[in-house]
Order: sequence, then C-alpha cells, then structure tokens
Amino acid sequence: MSQLDAVLAHIDDNLDASLERLFAFLRIASISTDPAHRDECRRAAEHVRAELAGLGFTADVHATPGHPVVLGATAGRADTRVLFYGHYDVQPVDPLELWNTQPFEPQLETLADGSKLIRARGAADDKGQILTFLEAVRAWKAVTGALPVGVTVLIEGEEEVGSVNLPAFVDAHLENLRADAVLVCDTNRWDDDTPAITTGLRGLVHDEIVIRTADRDLHSGLFGGAAQNAVHVLAQVIAALREADGRIAVPGFYEGVPEVPEDVRAQWRGLGLDAQTFLGPVGLSVPAGEKDRDVIEQIQSRPAFDINGIIGGYTGEGSKTVIPAEASAKITFRLVGDQNPANVRDAFRAFVRRLIPADASVTFGSGDGAPAVSVPLDSPWLAKASRALADEWGRRPVTIGGGGSIPIIATLKHALGAEPLLVGFGLEDDRIHSPNEKYTLKSFHKGARSWARILQALAE
Amino acid sequence: MSQLDAVLAHIDDNLDASLERLFAFLRIASISTDPAHRDECRRAAEHVRAELAGLGFTADVHATPGHPVVLGATAGRADTRVLFYGHYDVQPVDPLELWNTQPFEPQLETLADGSKLIRARGAADDKGQILTFLEAVRAWKAVTGALPVGVTVLIEGEEEVGSVNLPAFVDAHLENLRADAVLVCDTNRWDDDTPAITTGLRGLVHDEIVIRTADRDLHSGLFGGAAQNAVHVLAQVIAALREADGRIAVPGFYEGVPEVPEDVRAQWRGLGLDAQTFLGPVGLSVPAGEKDRDVIEQIQSRPAFDINGIIGGYTGEGSKTVIPAEASAKITFRLVGDQNPANVRDAFRAFVRRLIPADASVTFGSGDGAPAVSVPLDSPWLAKASRALADEWGRRPVTIGGGGSIPIIATLKHALGAEPLLVGFGLEDDRIHSPNEKYTLKSFHKGARSWARILQALAE
Repeated sequence: MSQLDAVLAHIDDNLDASLERLFAFLRIASISTDPAHRDECRRAAEHVRAELAGLGFTADVHATPGHPVVLGATAGRADTRVLFYGHYDVQPVDPLELWNTQPFEPQLETLADGSKLIRARGAADDKGQILTFLEAVRAWKAVTGALPVGVTVLIEGEEEVGSVNLPAFVDAHLENLRADAVLVCDTNRWDDDTPAITTGLRGLVHDEIVIRTADRDLHSGLFGGAAQNAVHVLAQVIAALREADGRIAVPGFYEGVPEVPEDVRAQWRGLGLDAQTFLGPVGLSVPAGEKDRDVIEQIQSRPAFDINGIIGGYTGEGSKTVIPAEASAKITFRLVGDQNPANVRDAFRAFVRRLIPADASVTFGSGDGAPAVSVPLDSPWLAKASRALADEWGRRPVTIGGGGSIPIIATLKHALGAEPLLVGFGLEDDRIHSPNEKYTLKSFHKGARSWARILQALAE
Repeated sequence: MSQLDAVLAHIDDNLDASLERLFAFLRIASISTDPAHRDECRRAAEHVRAELAGLGFTADVHATPGHPVVLGATAGRADTRVLFYGHYDVQPVDPLELWNTQPFEPQLETLADGSKLIRARGAADDKGQILTFLEAVRAWKAVTGALPVGVTVLIEGEEEVGSVNLPAFVDAHLENLRADAVLVCDTNRWDDDTPAITTGLRGLVHDEIVIRTADRDLHSGLFGGAAQNAVHVLAQVIAALREADGRIAVPGFYEGVPEVPEDVRAQWRGLGLDAQTFLGPVGLSVPAGEKDRDVIEQIQSRPAFDINGIIGGYTGEGSKTVIPAEASAKITFRLVGDQNPANVRDAFRAFVRRLIPADASVTFGSGDGAPAVSVPLDSPWLAKASRALADEWGRRPVTIGGGGSIPIIATLKHALGAEPLLVGFGLEDDRIHSPNEKYTLKSFHKGARSWARILQALAE
C-alpha cells in the first residue's frame, strides 16, 4: 500500500471521529455580524488554535480591532509551502423559525436514498470545508508523521462581514504568511459527481442607503398627499438602479468589465447549465439579470446588484397609518474583471444622491469592497490539483469562472505574490446563507480525501 | 348666573379631577392592532362602561369578534337625541426608544411659556377627546341634574384597525343607536386660537403587498444577477404606483374624485395655509403630492397613496449577502368624494399584478376600506355648534373640508340617517400616530367647555 493509500484508508476508517470534531466546531455560534456573539467568535478562534496545536502546528490567536485571527504553521518534507485560508465565522441564522433543527445543534440526517447530510449553520460555509483540509492534514501526520509540503494555516473571523481587519493583519505578518500557493476551501464543486476548481471570484461592494424625510413619522390621514414618504423615496431609488433590460443604471458601472471571448462562452454553453438546471432547484426559472446574457454569464462573468434587506415604517402585526420618516436598505454589488470597488461605490452614491427629491436626505453605510480576482488557467498548482481531483472523483474538475466573493483573496494574492487555488466541495443547494444550511457527508468525506491527494500532488 | 355659566364654572373648578380621570384612562395600554394587548382593550372598555354608569347612563360592554364595544344612553330634557361616537383603542407605540416618557404613564408637562401638555399615547387620539365630551356631560349632570338633550354614547375599540366589526354591531343595534345627529370628537381645531368643524373626511383602503420569489433566501454570490430579488420587485411596484408628477398611476383611480369649485379654492387660499405653515413644523417644506395642486388641496380634497411600512431580507446589524425571497409593504389609500373603496382596491391589485415579473408572485392583505364622507354646510346642527364654538373661542369656527379617515362615520350616517357633526380639539402637532403624542391642557379644558355649550345649543 502506498503512503497515499494508507492516508486515504485512515480518513475512511476515522470518519466518525472526524465528524465528532466537526460537530464540536459547529456548536460554536460564531456569528461575526452580531456584536452579541463576540465571545463565541473568540471561542471559535481558540478552538481552531487548539486543533492546530494538536496537529503539531505552532499556532496563535491574534487579536484585531474586530474578531481574532488564527495563524499556525508546520514544516513539510518538501520546500514547497502552501497557505490555507478559511474563516470560522458564520452568517446570522434569522429567520430562526424557518429552521427545522437548531442551527448550532448539528445533526446527521439520513435521506431516503441512504445518503447523509450534516445540518447546521456553518456546515458548508466554512467550518465543514475547513475541516476537509485539517482532517487530510491529520491523516498525513497520523500515518506518516509529516506532511508532503509545508503548511501555514490562516483562519479569520470576519469573512462574512467583509474581512475588514484582515488586510492590516496580512501587512503586519507578511513574513509568516509567505507561501507558494494560497489554498482556499470555500467554493462549490460542479455537481454531486464532478469536482471543480474556481478560477474567478467576483468582487464585492457592501453599502446601505438610509433615507430620512420629516422629523418624525406622520399621520397619513393628516399629511397623506403632502408629506414626502421615506419608503417611497427609497423604493424609487432602488427601482431606478436597474434598467428594464436588467442592466445596472449607474453611469460608469460597467467600466473594467471584460467581455468573455466567444470560444469560452461556447465552452460554457457546452456545460449544459441552462436556466432550468440552475434556477429550478430553488423554485425559479427565468434569469433575472441582463436580458442579452445566458444564465451562466450572469453568474460567472457579469457584475450584479442586489438588495439584501429593506426596512421602514410600521412592520408589526396589523396596520398603522403612518408616513414613515426613515427607511433603509442594505445593498451589494458583485464585481468582475477590473471593476474598482471604490469607483463603483462613489458612482453608485452619486447616482443615488441625484435621485433624492426635496424634503429627503440620504446617508450611506460602510461602502467596503474588494475587487474581483482571477486565477490563470495555466497555473502549475491548478494542473497538479486538477490531476489529484480527477484521481479522487474519476472525472476531471470543471474550471468555474465566477461565483461568490471571498474578499481577502485578492489581498493575499497581491501581498504574497502567490496564486490562489480555490477547491471547494459545497453544492449549490447547501443553503449557505439561508435557514437549514447543510453539507453532505459525501462532500465532507471525499473533500478530505481530495485534499490528502492534493497535498501530495503539490509536492511533486 | 345662567345654568350654562354654572356648568362652565363647574368644569373650570374641577379641572384637576377631570385630568385625574383622563390619566386613569390613559394608563390602559389599549393597542388594538396587537393581539398581545387584547386584555387591555377589554379593560379599557370596562373602564368606559364604569364611567358612563357613574354618570347615570345605562351602559353595557358588548362582545364582538374583535375588541368589545361600549354602548350607553341617558335621557335629556329635550326630545332631541345625539349619538356620541369615539374609540378607546390607540395606535402602537413603536419605536419606543423615541419616546421621552413612557407612553402609558401620562405626564402633565409645563412648557417655557407656562402652558401645559398631557403627554401619553391616546392623549389626543382619542381618549383625551372622548373625555372632553364626558366631562361636559358630567358638569351638566352635577350642576343641573340632567342633560339638555338625550345622549347615547358609542365607544369602540377597533378604530385604529379599520372598525372591521362595528358595521355588524350597528346593524344589530339600530334601535338603540337612533339619534338626530352623530357627534364625533376625533378631529382637530384649526389652530391654537381657532376652533374648527370638519365637514369632510377622506375614506380609506388598507392593503398589504407580499412578494415571493425563490423558495428560500439565496446567496447573492452564487445567484446574484440570475435570481429574482423580492425586494427589487416590491420596490419596482411601489415606484410604479406614482407618476413623476405625483399622480397615482392606477387606471381608474381618480373616478369619483370631485373637482373643488374655484371659489372654494380661493377661500382656502385665503386661509394662508401654505406649504411652509403646514409642513415646516415637521421638518418639511415642499408638498410631495400632485404637482399642480396647493398643499391645502393635497390634504383636503385630493386622494393620496402612502406606504406605511416595508420589510424584507436581512434587517439586523451588519450585513448579510442574501437575495431575499420575500418582501412586503403595508399601504393605504386616502379617498375623497365618491371614490369606491372596493373599486380602488381591485384596480390597485390589478395594476400590481400586471407589474409582477416572471419568478415572482404577489398576495395581498385585507383590502378593507371605507368611503369618504361629507357633511352638508347647511346642516342645522352645524349652525348650532358653530354658534356655541364662537361663544367659547371668541371667533367663528373654520369648516375643514378634509383630513383623516374615521371609517365608521359613513356607516353611521347611512344606517341612522343622521348627519355627523365633527368637532375636535386636537392640533396638527399632537403627534397622534407618532412617539410623544400629546394633547394640550387648553385643548382638554376648552374642549370640555365647548361641548358644554354645544349640548345646550343643540337643544335650542
């Protein structure tokens, strides 16, 4: 039996223990966006540090102005060193009443076909994915006493809130972060049978629009028809941000958006990802974006605008005849290519300001952002990982051109001069920002096996 | 000293005791829209019944499918009988943090100029106004042992939620409600020195728009650009409901809206109610309604559309990159003239349905409504009340052509064949649906004196 086969067998034989470790991690309610969960974020960081120490890493928890960062390192047989990045923080859980189980009491569920799911907030995003990597490291250490390559692990606690404190941390710890490649396990595979390597990540701009009108909520019987309504102004602003054809109406917004070559588009069309395949599983059928773009373009190579939440006026039970004096919406832009987050934010704000009528004012939120990032298709790390994944899954991985944003990847790429390698095992129906988040046991198990193979391949 | 002078002197001499009675009423948190306050609505009804019984009325609390109704009656010297209508229910108090005092712990505040305010939810709408009438009744009974006219009192608990159960109650108790005039104290005076009689009330349609898209909230990184966003759809619908010139875009909406004669408009303009006077005190300056109408027309003789509240997606602290699958808005239309509430509701819903794109669906709320109501300017009751008010205030009352809605007035007018007489003592800055609601001590005191005079005038 080769070393690798022994490592893979160890992963198979110890799956229950791996799962126990994942459940312990999932029980920590590390919601980064909610100040009430600050202590649990700290606990999650300590938990990761202890896990790394148990695997023979030198590891520390580093305070930041927000939630702490965990940094650990261990040597490998080869000179090659990889930096593994992940995040211990998770999304909020509301609306809690839509969960069938408690979000921080992980369950292993067996489906009718005998397959199993891990159900919990963070199961897929990103605690389960982090542990696919750490369990591969554990198996290599247990079976051979060492790793094929040197490994540095960076686990942060603010990915879900824009990684606002990580760039400064990276700058301050450049020497300890040096690596030949940056491994990230926070993306999806193509489908249940097909692995994927993500070669492009959309960038992100977060902002909030807050509209204020009168100095108090007004009685609509007395003032209706004469007083400016904050919700009305906000709705008009939101409606104006998109054209009827789905394009975003902000002047200059599309600056830096590259056109995908026709041969690549043809290749995408060959993947068979039509609207029904992509949208059908979530109850939709018609792509809502730019009308002249296929659904695969809309999600891979085009920027997007979404309202993430809106609130204003009376939202309790029954009715209340007020004219709201304040209304707000949280928004995000997804960026591609060379779109500049600061320019997008500024153009967006200028556009909104021009729409504000008399007797209304607007303020904005953080306006934080991160640019899109792409991985060259001829990266040697990509080729090595691709072979390892093909060995595990029995078919070559699909290279995915776009998707969600991981704000820090661009920073790491530029600060370290190292190419990212994005290999994840999630599935589109993992409900990662929704109630009832899950990660399949297959994702977890074959994810760990995949990383065991990749660690060896990277040393070759 | 005439009987009336003795009654007025009694009101003056017993003002502190009147205020104590009002405070006891204000301490009951009878918020009708919130099921959690059901018992307090019941308590408020019992409180009113006990007050009426103490004044020598035969009075009962009648159960309804919603909150109970109080009905009481007492004889008068003349054959004339009036029905006094009011409501013991109050608006919700949120946002509670904007109150400077507890909403159900009434305070008497003294301003820098020495004038005094009663501060509490319901102080003006409608508990304070109800008690102006009952304290006038009390003084007449105390001083003369009888009332100039027979008085029936109808106090309901669902005015703030559309009086949904009152029409059936009125039908079932027609004989006990028979009266020559319907007195209502739920409107404003013109300004601090000038009384008013309201001769027109705008009607009302309440509804809710609920938009649903995907079968769950989606991750905007994965689905952004391809998936329909419920907040976006809702914002587009709301924005489309009004034209750029302020007109409501629903086809047929203006059917039944009468044009005010030029001489009446000229008279209104003579009142000096310009935009600055009306909107300035609440921090606004530009009338937001139909651009070709004066502010006095916008609030008196024109229909209006308002969004009372909106909610969808993530509204907690921080950010969450979801595409919301549901969003909803509460809306009201204010109606004038012969606009038919059911027709307006149906036309509105048809208009909205036509705007719903693929992958979105819409449902609506109750769609309850009441038509506008107007009082003929040549009503004999109006002439009598007008003289009584002039005697009290030293100037003739202004007749106000429009304003808020009191859903049941049209029902009472048609069921009983009796003209309404709307005399109220509120002021526009009473914040009646907002935090820090108040009623001036002057409104309360001179309100009671005004009713004492009107009761005598109606018998003449």
